Amino acid sequence: MSQEIQLDISGVRSAAIGTEHGITPSVYREIERDLSEAHEIIKQEKKSGDYGFYTIHNDRTMWNDVEITAKKLLKNDIENLVILGIGGSALGITTLLTALKPQYYNLQTKEERRGFPRVFVMDNVDPDSFSEMMELCDPKKTLFNVISKSGTTAETIAQLFVVLEMLQKSLGKSNIGNHLVITTGPVAKRKTLTPMQEISKKYDCKTFVVPENIGGRFSVFSPVGIFPAAMLGLNLRELAKGCRLMAKRCASSDLKKNPAYLNAGIHHHLMSKRGRSISVMMPYSNKLRDLADWYRQLWAESLGKKENRDGSETKLFAGQTPINALGVTDQHSQLQLYLEGPHDKIVTIMEESHFNTNLPITGIPRSFKSLKYMQKRTMGDLIHAERKATVHALKAAKRPVVKIKVPRVNESTLAQLFYMFEVQTAVAGVLLDINPFDQPAVEQIKIFTREYLGKK
Amino acid sequence: MSQEIQLDISGVRSAAIGTEHGITPSVYREIERDLSEAHEIIKQEKKSGDYGFYTIHNDRTMWNDVEITAKKLLKNDIENLVILGIGGSALGITTLLTALKPQYYNLQTKEERRGFPRVFVMDNVDPDSFSEMMELCDPKKTLFNVISKSGTTAETIAQLFVVLEMLQKSLGKSNIGNHLVITTGPVAKRKTLTPMQEISKKYDCKTFVVPENIGGRFSVFSPVGIFPAAMLGLNLRELAKGCRLMAKRCASSDLKKNPAYLNAGIHHHLMSKRGRSISVMMPYSNKLRDLADWYRQLWAESLGKKENRDGSETKLFAGQTPINALGVTDQHSQLQLYLEGPHDKIVTIMEESHFNTNLPITGIPRSFKSLKYMQKRTMGDLIHAERKATVHALKAAKRPVVKIKVPRVNESTLAQLFYMFEVQTAVAGVLLDINPFDQPAVEQIKIFTREYLGKK
Repeated sequence: MSQEIQLDISGVRSAAIGTEHGITPSVYREIERDLSEAHEIIKQEKKSGDYGFYTIHNDRTMWNDVEITAKKLLKNDIENLVILGIGGSALGITTLLTALKPQYYNLQTKEERRGFPRVFVMDNVDPDSFSEMMELCDPKKTLFNVISKSGTTAETIAQLFVVLEMLQKSLGKSNIGNHLVITTGPVAKRKTLTPMQEISKKYDCKTFVVPENIGGRFSVFSPVGIFPAAMLGLNLRELAKGCRLMAKRCASSDLKKNPAYLNAGIHHHLMSKRGRSISVMMPYSNKLRDLADWYRQLWAESLGKKENRDGSETKLFAGQTPINALGVTDQHSQLQLYLEGPHDKIVTIMEESHFNTNLPITGIPRSFKSLKYMQKRTMGDLIHAERKATVHALKAAKRPVVKIKVPRVNESTLAQLFYMFEVQTAVAGVLLDINPFDQPAVEQIKIFTREYLGKK
Repeated sequence: MSQEIQLDISGVRSAAIGTEHGITPSVYREIERDLSEAHEIIKQEKKSGDYGFYTIHNDRTMWNDVEITAKKLLKNDIENLVILGIGGSALGITTLLTALKPQYYNLQTKEERRGFPRVFVMDNVDPDSFSEMMELCDPKKTLFNVISKSGTTAETIAQLFVVLEMLQKSLGKSNIGNHLVITTGPVAKRKTLTPMQEISKKYDCKTFVVPENIGGRFSVFSPVGIFPAAMLGLNLRELAKGCRLMAKRCASSDLKKNPAYLNAGIHHHLMSKRGRSISVMMPYSNKLRDLADWYRQLWAESLGKKENRDGSETKLFAGQTPINALGVTDQHSQLQLYLEGPHDKIVTIMEESHFNTNLPITGIPRSFKSLKYMQKRTMGDLIHAERKATVHALKAAKRPVVKIKVPRVNESTLAQLFYMFEVQTAVAGVLLDINPFDQPAVEQIKIFTREYLGKK
């Protein structure tokens, strides 16, 4: 069985949903032409070295350092790994954990966890939640991985100082360094150290560097994502292998071979020319639910821009609003709107083809005639049937639907998905003529926050 | 301090965001007129008794039965409460639990939980997740609350038969009834029993009735929501009190007094006449995060309709797409798009005014000059400042923003919020001239699912 993920866009073609809403062969050829132009720009981008996410999986020195560090730290008595980070510093690892660890992992015994620590991703500054985490995690048995590329993120810095206070009370100053791993940007020449770099120096703790050319939402394969992954026993080699598999496919300018280009072209056309302002990501798999959340940041923050690439045109207000949904759960919440509401969405249905178990539905009495359709079926059969029914209904309602098939959820397929969406986003930025790698409005908010906090 | 929630719409007015995007005084008067017409229809609706959610909190017999049953069952040695349900059968109770129980409740010891059981809401048919729940929950110490108003929901029935098999193996047939509580619709005259009613009869288990006039997404104050709430020790009297408080406010036709009407009018105007096709719900509170998810179902499934109320006009394709976000977390994920992307959103910012704790941020060395703004502040100060900064930025970018102030998160304020949004949805249905209480497309999917499952 192939371990490659597959993209199927037959559900957006006019043959499936009609010419009013679907993509006709001539439009498809237009998309091909757009992409072959964009390909030249992407090739330049790759060559420039300005965007590290294309090749970070090949950085053996860094990956080895991460692996060796994790192995060493796991020899200590670590009961909890707590990640302090927000946005791109939290979403990648959350996605990996939801996909690759048991759903109720933290409730398992240490033995069931094969000795790996429990994990808490603290991605907010809600004081009540944060206090509750601190109640649960004995500082003596807890490792804190503090992640901020800029080294100045207010939320993460606030968390860090609250934690430092707790560590000092419990362990004394001299031991703090053993309970802290910092992941932050490189020390800049002729600039003062950032708060996180100062802390790193002060406590002499292990520190990973996020390369300058990797942005937060593209950082899952930097130490931001792979260090905690290694601490939880995920297979880094398979992650890197998945990246390489997809990188190879994404090097082609042929849409039939390159799923990132194809999906970017389809989405770009439907958002720019057909009023599809919303992109729904709906995996039929609890494991993949947070991938939809990670995609939400990537797609929203990268493409939501009011200026074009060189700043010459303002008030563009580009972007497509991503929505995370979950099959089958959200059939009973969102699907009514997707089927009968405004024609403003493109829906991606993601399939986990093989579950680890299937759970036979047994014991239905023969007298329950209305349940005949469920006899001798499994829960796995049911979720697959529901997925097919949804695709069928979406097509019947003339809603464009993209299918992504994930043969099994594992390190390799996860990496393929991450990498594909990252390239898709970069290319969509080219097609929209915006810069997908910055976030000027978020920077603005940081300034306002400081003002309001100063006022108290 | 008032325990009433407050709605503030100053951020949608032209005075705040300009006339191009804001609501001018003359438009506001138009909205008032629309609502005063809608009020007459709502009054009729209430009088008809067709929609039970308006008054279910006054059904003392039912609420007492729920309370007494829970008290009795809690005397047994119940370590786990497992809820089997999907859509409206799961979202209400999930919202209550996230808001009113500790964030890491299931990780607490039984003592810390004050003797109440752990809780698992199973709202999907992912076979791997379901297996993992079964591994964790010893059937001898587990109570299953199976919820489906129709009594035929495929997902819930499948879960139920898988669980029955497990219970039978572990406890023997005769004991199953003590581990099962069924919540389902009333037995219809001259109709055969539904599968869930059959099971209820077969195992002679406690069964709660969901009144015929209560739809799934409006059912949180029926036994669907309040029985599990009682099993987890939530205060039912305070829930009922909150409903009564808000019911009183919602009886007025005066927009200044009735937040449900006001919010419905604003949303309806902006979606129908100003291209605001998306409604973002963004609480600055981890406790309120799932309220945004509950709202997502309510708003999407109620208003996403292609026909008008009497079926005379088809292809309306009404509806506004709800999005759940979380402050401050999603400032680092979604806000860039909300501020610089298309002018297609109305954003609701929800405030938790008083947290249980504030967490002082201490120990910042004086030498860290860039962190001066954080000195002597708390994590609570930070989340409030971020919220204000976001509202400020949204207004500056001319994006309409509604504020909801929740003085404290407790049973009363939660009930007020639920009730307000329910009435708001009913009124929005009137304004849009669609039926907010049905879900025809979801019914269609059920038929397709049976076909696909039959084929296997």
